[in-house]
Amino acid sequence: MTDLLRAIHDIVGKGGVLTGTDVSSRASGIWRPQGIEAQAIVRPRSTEEVSGILAMCNAAGQSVVAHGGLTGLVEGAVTESGDLALSLERMNAIEEVNAVERTMTVQSGVVLEAVQNAAEDVGLMYPLDIGGRGSCTVGGNIATNAGGNRVIRYGMTRDMVLGVEAVLADGTVVSSMNRMIKNNAGYDVKQLFIGSEGCLGVVTRAVLRLREKPRSQETMLVACRSFDEIVELLKLMDAKLGGTLSAFEVLWNNFYRLVTTPPATQKPPLSQDYPYYALIEAMGGDPEGDHDRIEQAASEGYDAGLIADAVIASSEAQRLELWAMRDDVEQVHQYSPMFIFDVSLRISKMESYVAEVNRRLEETFGDYVNFTFGHIGDGNIHFGTSAGEGPEAQDGVKRAVYEPLESIGGSVSAEHGVGLDKKKYLKLSRNDAEIALMRTLKKALDPNGILNPGKVFDLAA
Amino acid sequence: MTDLLRAIHDIVGKGGVLTGTDVSSRASGIWRPQGIEAQAIVRPRSTEEVSGILAMCNAAGQSVVAHGGLTGLVEGAVTESGDLALSLERMNAIEEVNAVERTMTVQSGVVLEAVQNAAEDVGLMYPLDIGGRGSCTVGGNIATNAGGNRVIRYGMTRDMVLGVEAVLADGTVVSSMNRMIKNNAGYDVKQLFIGSEGCLGVVTRAVLRLREKPRSQETMLVACRSFDEIVELLKLMDAKLGGTLSAFEVLWNNFYRLVTTPPATQKPPLSQDYPYYALIEAMGGDPEGDHDRIEQAASEGYDAGLIADAVIASSEAQRLELWAMRDDVEQVHQYSPMFIFDVSLRISKMESYVAEVNRRLEETFGDYVNFTFGHIGDGNIHFGTSAGEGPEAQDGVKRAVYEPLESIGGSVSAEHGVGLDKKKYLKLSRNDAEIALMRTLKKALDPNGILNPGKVFDLAA
Repeated sequence: MTDLLRAIHDIVGKGGVLTGTDVSSRASGIWRPQGIEAQAIVRPRSTEEVSGILAMCNAAGQSVVAHGGLTGLVEGAVTESGDLALSLERMNAIEEVNAVERTMTVQSGVVLEAVQNAAEDVGLMYPLDIGGRGSCTVGGNIATNAGGNRVIRYGMTRDMVLGVEAVLADGTVVSSMNRMIKNNAGYDVKQLFIGSEGCLGVVTRAVLRLREKPRSQETMLVACRSFDEIVELLKLMDAKLGGTLSAFEVLWNNFYRLVTTPPATQKPPLSQDYPYYALIEAMGGDPEGDHDRIEQAASEGYDAGLIADAVIASSEAQRLELWAMRDDVEQVHQYSPMFIFDVSLRISKMESYVAEVNRRLEETFGDYVNFTFGHIGDGNIHFGTSAGEGPEAQDGVKRAVYEPLESIGGSVSAEHGVGLDKKKYLKLSRNDAEIALMRTLKKALDPNGILNPGKVFDLAA
Repeated sequence: MTDLLRAIHDIVGKGGVLTGTDVSSRASGIWRPQGIEAQAIVRPRSTEEVSGILAMCNAAGQSVVAHGGLTGLVEGAVTESGDLALSLERMNAIEEVNAVERTMTVQSGVVLEAVQNAAEDVGLMYPLDIGGRGSCTVGGNIATNAGGNRVIRYGMTRDMVLGVEAVLADGTVVSSMNRMIKNNAGYDVKQLFIGSEGCLGVVTRAVLRLREKPRSQETMLVACRSFDEIVELLKLMDAKLGGTLSAFEVLWNNFYRLVTTPPATQKPPLSQDYPYYALIEAMGGDPEGDHDRIEQAASEGYDAGLIADAVIASSEAQRLELWAMRDDVEQVHQYSPMFIFDVSLRISKMESYVAEVNRRLEETFGDYVNFTFGHIGDGNIHFGTSAGEGPEAQDGVKRAVYEPLESIGGSVSAEHGVGLDKKKYLKLSRNDAEIALMRTLKKALDPNGILNPGKVFDLAA
């Protein structure tokens, strides 16, 4: 053990510093079976301990990578052998659930599902919901500004976090634990720590905004004959369902066929011959009236010629089956190598963009699959793409997906973040001045560059 | 004219630099009849001109204060005789309204009402709405993260701005004109310019998020017998009206009496004898069904014992009358001197906080009025307070309102910002580490301190 690790051990006590096989026996990510490489995993129990650790690491120029649930998909928490991993796993307390104020105060290592359940226990809802719910942490959600299926209604993590406590690289604790929806007293410094992937500070605590639990949840799957119909239908549903529209998920034909054909377990609720399908959900306040309302919305869509066919879930079991179909993304792993993308772009550019990506995949690889689906209400498309073999294939696929975004102002990351995985492509979505400003922030808050070094962009231009 | 002004004149051309009585004949604010004091008012026509001006001013150490519609209430855009006022009034173009993508791209000097109207023209809505709509600008809305009546449904300006272009103190143009709801490609640098009161950059353009225009608007006024009933009723309405609840405005008895008694023009729709009234609005998608829905919500409130009496607007005229009553805030100017406050705090602390403010006013002044109302769904209380005379009175009133916020984690500014007016009280709502981090940002982005100097906090700790 180095002197630094011994000093850190004095702060965190027994069990607080893991080394050797206690480190390497842990998987380094949800789809990364390889073990963690790091000098040590440090497991503080309090903000004060995080502060002490960072102050020492900063003085020693020791790199530190914060670890939440390691469910990220962009190599945003990957460590090298010289790094310290700072795991928040022992800081997972739910400190307060306040049903009257509709807030929850937590330590950042708490698992998302625990937060969802604690909200549910008092008749409320924490609306963030993503596939990693069982192991991802609130700290990781904040660091990546996590999105998910309900962004169209409730926004991203940035919109659900009222207050944040973070420790800066030098150990300074910035406790900005605001509990109000409105607070314009000075710059809103908590925004710095949301979506900056652990590069500007380590989030230790947060105040989350809870919502009233919907009294009804109505779901339908519709088929459309063209992408123009999808675009019009989104506007119609948004207007007709008022503020209750909570999901507008589009499945391109290839993805719909994939998740409704064995070995997938769901049967196709509608013919597999339409080019597009939309899974539409409304969360309302009127269990008696809301089913009629979504039926009316469907018939308005029919009458406007925007819906070719539709099925409205008439039971909770049927509703869950529709979602199980949409969420059966694992089916893409029938193909290997498989690359998952989360890009965002303007809805008016989507049809031609997807065609261009497919044209490039065809041109480069001849043989390829590119399953396409996404949260179209938010401008977010996912691809599950497989073509070719080996590292060149990966690079070719990424270029086919990312390069056409540049000219249309699209983003290489709608919600997963940049990490190491997309660092090379960041400049397609952000201009030099934006990246220079990110660097200015990084240098101002972490002048020694100890926090999650090398992620998102390089410190030197 | 100084050399610097001559050089700026070369950039902005004829009519671009105002001096002398062209400056002093302009009012320095909406409730500030005194003329503007400044070396000059500079009126660029483009981002490039703003960039050129700031580069020169930065090199010369010349202070610059950006001017929008000057409707702010916290002395956030006040100038001194040595300052340059940088008015965005000639940068008021609406560059694009995109009904399909539901975005509007504007120059920052555009007036809010023009944006609202342009959205309306294509069947959409820009949800920000505040009293200054006829003269406030989008740039000012962004600089102050403006709120208003519909925050409970649509959020504050921060939630309505997809992209921002700003010019840094040294003239660097940071164009972060994102057009998507989701974009996690690197740090979200636009957040820096929202709510930082023109201290970190001059906002020159923005991409605004438009919403579907509600098809129905249902409004009711209810009377409650206790603040506990108000708290319960908010939760009930939020759950029952699903995502359609768009306003939950509470009027304390003294404010209700004021705006329903001559010289106010509205008659009391409900008896003046209840301690609290709530004006509740839902914006929905179903003109046929939504009136029934708010009636059902009201009856659920009655049945739960939370509503003592209620009136539901049955016509657009009646709806507008209810709002005219709530919005007749000018009535507070029957008293002088009159101080307007916008604090925020947790709903569970409101009743005791208002009592404590009144206790302090009584103790300090004996004779006082403290009209109380606000956007309670967002934690925001407004006071219209009059007590005593002269500068000591002002200080005494401010202390009575602000000081009790410190121990309960309230904010001295829910939505108006800090400016010069609340600078002295910022430390009641933000701790030393938060203010130190604000200073770090200010120094990193504006090292010479030329942008809106002296506002929000002092550069030296």
